[in-house]
Amino acid sequence: MYVIAVDLGGTQMRAAIVNEEGKLLTRKALKTNAKDGAERVIQRLIALLHEVADPFFQREGKSAFAGIGMAIPGALNVQEGIVHFSPNLPGWKNVAIKEIMENEFSLPVYVANDADAAALGEYYFGQGKGVHNFIYVTISTGVGAGVIENGRLLLGVQGQAAEVGHMIVNPEGPKCSCGNFGCIEAYISGTGIVRRAKEELANSPLPSRLRQLEKIETKDVFLFAKEDDEIAQKIVEETKKYLGILTMNLIHLFNPKLIIFGGGVSQVGDELFAPAISYAKKKVMYPMGEQFTYRLTKLGDNVGLLGAASIVKYYREIT
Amino acid sequence: MYVIAVDLGGTQMRAAIVNEEGKLLTRKALKTNAKDGAERVIQRLIALLHEVADPFFQREGKSAFAGIGMAIPGALNVQEGIVHFSPNLPGWKNVAIKEIMENEFSLPVYVANDADAAALGEYYFGQGKGVHNFIYVTISTGVGAGVIENGRLLLGVQGQAAEVGHMIVNPEGPKCSCGNFGCIEAYISGTGIVRRAKEELANSPLPSRLRQLEKIETKDVFLFAKEDDEIAQKIVEETKKYLGILTMNLIHLFNPKLIIFGGGVSQVGDELFAPAISYAKKKVMYPMGEQFTYRLTKLGDNVGLLGAASIVKYYREIT
Repeated sequence: MYVIAVDLGGTQMRAAIVNEEGKLLTRKALKTNAKDGAERVIQRLIALLHEVADPFFQREGKSAFAGIGMAIPGALNVQEGIVHFSPNLPGWKNVAIKEIMENEFSLPVYVANDADAAALGEYYFGQGKGVHNFIYVTISTGVGAGVIENGRLLLGVQGQAAEVGHMIVNPEGPKCSCGNFGCIEAYISGTGIVRRAKEELANSPLPSRLRQLEKIETKDVFLFAKEDDEIAQKIVEETKKYLGILTMNLIHLFNPKLIIFGGGVSQVGDELFAPAISYAKKKVMYPMGEQFTYRLTKLGDNVGLLGAASIVKYYREIT
Repeated sequence: MYVIAVDLGGTQMRAAIVNEEGKLLTRKALKTNAKDGAERVIQRLIALLHEVADPFFQREGKSAFAGIGMAIPGALNVQEGIVHFSPNLPGWKNVAIKEIMENEFSLPVYVANDADAAALGEYYFGQGKGVHNFIYVTISTGVGAGVIENGRLLLGVQGQAAEVGHMIVNPEGPKCSCGNFGCIEAYISGTGIVRRAKEELANSPLPSRLRQLEKIETKDVFLFAKEDDEIAQKIVEETKKYLGILTMNLIHLFNPKLIIFGGGVSQVGDELFAPAISYAKKKVMYPMGEQFTYRLTKLGDNVGLLGAASIVKYYREIT
């Protein structure tokens, strides 16, 4: 059986045919041009899927396809397949994407939030294989997560659970993009790290190589911290501290065996995560830290498409 | 069918025969005398259960009993029925309580953490009836919780999930009994409210009726706040603020339809909870606040025994 995987991002839309082993047999991508609004983006997406899938349909027949899995950023009703809204997809307001795509392709369509899809991708094809209690946390521009609890995706009543990025960890903290203060995202996301660095540069008289950059990026902060740049070091230490707090909170709330970190900031690697996790393991209630561990994703750029493919696999397995 | 319900607290142990409608047919209680240690406490518990159950066994036969449900505070392995440790039961270290009780009574024994049991009690007999996504939060000396997600109790890999009280909401905050800083429990538990009031009294020159009390209790703080006592008001406002943050965080993490509040502090009532929840509903990501609501427990003193009885019902239903 094959599935059609769709990774609908705000910048790019990707589609692929994926086999049961998670091999991407063919893949294509288009610019989303999200600002064109829902209708045009969906037209483009349908054209992309026809391009990817029609040759397969002709060769293998539609019965060789288990369905279409769509990873979509934003607030979805996964049961009904409706996109309530998406910060990355302007104009998408209560779009019945499942119905639209099922009418077009006559295949069952399954949708998930992009972070939940990535968690399922890790579960079937990545670092979460064989682990039935883990959390996938993606740290990039924002912070998202998907929770696998006892082999099930944690959804909540509207399918919106695991909005980990907006857990408030310090109400006196920095303003978050969501309007609240001190969300974990405002500390440890790439955006949060750069913003904190800029604030520190503005408030501190210390010299820093960061001052010479036209545009500060997350990786610069970590690079200069290794070169004894005090301001960069302060930001990195604070990032570790809040990463530790995030981990402690997730352990206390979900008692997972594992957290898998993905997203751009995870590429900083063990030098960032190892001390934060080691701190968290020591500080949580016995015995939750004992068997707990973390891993960094290895799915790389394929996480979106493998995640999307995994949605189909998951819903076929549990129903 | 009947169940034997056991509510093993640090102060009292209670046992009852409960029918399918949640009616307590007979109930007895004994002092736990927890400091005597595990062996003696278990002997006492066994004697109590015989006293409660033996007349029923003789009259109805053992086959009329579905099992024994035990609500126990502390860290349990619910699958294996082992009490790892309990702050309220000194000397309990990896006690195989399920095995001990099954050997004694030849009935299936099911155990749960007391907060999880209470959540199940609300699910079957209380404010959570018919709701498949809710969180029960008990606010008393500490803060505990049980999460019902899609009709299932959230357990995590060691059955320790939903340790909501130790979610850190401000790392610059007060020290918690667990040793960490700024856990939500350190703010909104009865202990936390009284401790914050004492600190405020020590640090503020303002007059306050609280200064005249030999021993400050939570209810005094709420009472005096209504009488324009500025210090009490400050503490109450801060309690509302952190109750709002707890609620926002739980909504973002679990996307529940409902939070049920129980425990001593919940008796303060809507004047505490309504403003906090109303704030939280407005501040969370759309559409999670739309259908969200809260309720106060109505199970009262029976929550422990009804919770314990519900453990049996739950595990019989899901397996």
